[in-house]
Amino acid sequence: MKPFGEVRAGILGGGQLGRMLVQEAINLNIAFDILDPDPEAPCKSLSPRFVTGSLSDFDTVYNFGKDLDLITIEIEKVNADALGKLEEEGVLVYPQPRVIQLIQDKGLQKEFFRQNDIPSAPFRLFKSRDELLRANPAFPFIQKLRRDGYDGRGVLRIASAADLDHAFNEPSLIEELVDFEKELSVIVARSSNGETRSFPCVEMEFNPEANLVEFLVSPSAISNEIQKEAEQLAKQIASALNITGLLAVEMFLTKNGSLLVNEIAPRPHNSGHQSIEGNATSQFGQHLRAIFGLPLGDPSAISHAVMVNLLGEPGYSGPARYEGMEELLKMSGVHVHLYGKLLTKPFRKMGHITVIDTNREKALEKARAVQQLIKVKA
Amino acid sequence: MKPFGEVRAGILGGGQLGRMLVQEAINLNIAFDILDPDPEAPCKSLSPRFVTGSLSDFDTVYNFGKDLDLITIEIEKVNADALGKLEEEGVLVYPQPRVIQLIQDKGLQKEFFRQNDIPSAPFRLFKSRDELLRANPAFPFIQKLRRDGYDGRGVLRIASAADLDHAFNEPSLIEELVDFEKELSVIVARSSNGETRSFPCVEMEFNPEANLVEFLVSPSAISNEIQKEAEQLAKQIASALNITGLLAVEMFLTKNGSLLVNEIAPRPHNSGHQSIEGNATSQFGQHLRAIFGLPLGDPSAISHAVMVNLLGEPGYSGPARYEGMEELLKMSGVHVHLYGKLLTKPFRKMGHITVIDTNREKALEKARAVQQLIKVKA
Repeated sequence: MKPFGEVRAGILGGGQLGRMLVQEAINLNIAFDILDPDPEAPCKSLSPRFVTGSLSDFDTVYNFGKDLDLITIEIEKVNADALGKLEEEGVLVYPQPRVIQLIQDKGLQKEFFRQNDIPSAPFRLFKSRDELLRANPAFPFIQKLRRDGYDGRGVLRIASAADLDHAFNEPSLIEELVDFEKELSVIVARSSNGETRSFPCVEMEFNPEANLVEFLVSPSAISNEIQKEAEQLAKQIASALNITGLLAVEMFLTKNGSLLVNEIAPRPHNSGHQSIEGNATSQFGQHLRAIFGLPLGDPSAISHAVMVNLLGEPGYSGPARYEGMEELLKMSGVHVHLYGKLLTKPFRKMGHITVIDTNREKALEKARAVQQLIKVKA
Repeated sequence: MKPFGEVRAGILGGGQLGRMLVQEAINLNIAFDILDPDPEAPCKSLSPRFVTGSLSDFDTVYNFGKDLDLITIEIEKVNADALGKLEEEGVLVYPQPRVIQLIQDKGLQKEFFRQNDIPSAPFRLFKSRDELLRANPAFPFIQKLRRDGYDGRGVLRIASAADLDHAFNEPSLIEELVDFEKELSVIVARSSNGETRSFPCVEMEFNPEANLVEFLVSPSAISNEIQKEAEQLAKQIASALNITGLLAVEMFLTKNGSLLVNEIAPRPHNSGHQSIEGNATSQFGQHLRAIFGLPLGDPSAISHAVMVNLLGEPGYSGPARYEGMEELLKMSGVHVHLYGKLLTKPFRKMGHITVIDTNREKALEKARAVQQLIKVKA
């Protein structure tokens, strides 16, 4: 490759992940061209060439990429065929189009797990609702669309025959419900030369009343043994995929102490945002190093860190206002990251806040205070 | 003021200080319009409105600012009269034009120190070389141009009558040589509501052989008493100036243990770059908070930090290459900040590197290794 500062690089997607990648890339004199369908996307003023266009359209993606040296993604839902053609023509596409294609289809993803002895919940594939009904699976189970699910969309919990009425009719997979103790995530980076490094395992903290993921806590407080196992598993998947770039691996820790891989994402991930302040190298810095063929950085945690997602408050849609921001900014060790989205809507990811503390309990306490304090309204 | 995310804000100057300010401002959804004479300035692709034009020209500065709500600077050499007019017309200009005017003239700066009992080396003002010669001051002394000195330019050491031949003919001041033990710097932030917070005192580490500032070390290892005194002095100056924004105060610690203020700068400063990784709030975050009327952040050091300036290697001019970068990126706790300048020339500030370590000596050791490793060549 050329000296990395001279590489003409682009990102498919100009949302918050692209934005934080661009923000980190400033440090290395790397500027990214951006393609996004939204003319007001978070990256719009942070690029020498911001192109408005569909990420799913072959010609749009191909034309965006044909004069670039290197392309990466911040969202999987892109035209992988166009990326494949660009790759054939000599553009470096990281993650590789074949990896994107595999991960776009949750059915292929599950088959890949099975073929590579990656522990994961047992599953079956169906082409339609009719086929599912004929199979008559035991309740309860989870039905997932094979394609285009995102942020919880495309996933149903089918508890009884009554729920079958609104089961998906598109190609789907069903899985047994996993009775899990914790949700864990490991982000691993793999460079084009095969160097592989794992960020420390993080865990999701649940609110027992609301039964919702509230915080992401780094590093995880689970046993060293299980952490090592989780990190090993993530590396194993990255190697089996032969991926260049980041891979986020979400896992369940079951009540009997074993790990099951839930889903994987071939890019920077919500479960790695705390690395900006909490680790020696951030996930964004690590992704840049991996795709530009630079030595990977030290991913160690340098502090306890708790990440709070800043979601649009239910009941509000319109130009965003950040209630409680001034109070929040008075707190020490609290790092605000807004995503540059003009409009809020219920549960839209508008930003995140990372709380840093040398003491884990204090970090959690502050995170709870942060969550009480700040609301995104319209 | 409007909600801070809706403020139309601008920066005079699109160099590295503007770039790091823009990079930090992303986190708060603040985008800056930028004015800079260089169409290839470091900020060029990081702004919704990058205007190429002179910072010294009244009309250019006035027209750039007239539709903005708030203007700040990253360099003092700007048309302060135009800023004064904008201020009269209701634009928030931070630092205030009267502060910029004072600091643009080192003679006025020294008189301000004298009037406000700020300890500083004794000085005399001269209109021309002839006037200086007639005064016949005792050697050695330092002659400084009253205006437009920058990064060591505009300063002469006059050791004997022979040196007088090339003494400045423009309005200047002369100062006694200060026999100092250390150079210190304190950055203080003052908000529009008068809230004032000081970053911990930092010190410059000299190379005894080359007699050059090599590193900036944070926090300083000098006695608590002197640190407190330095921080108090910086706050005193900020209050006397009634400034809104950051003020960097460079000081000498003399061999008899007293502090003398050398120079002040009303903006983010080279001696605060280590705060990006080394402090709970960075100088850039703090400047934003001060000028947007937000609560000031906690400026405490969270780690030992050593900052190494990355200067153009003597003997090389042209498109920059960063020799040793790959080796550098293998080191842990080493943070690279390149400034996006295409061309290097001898001693041009091309970037900086911050080394973080929980142990001060180890941080210094790594900084020495960094300095050996990386060279900016063409």
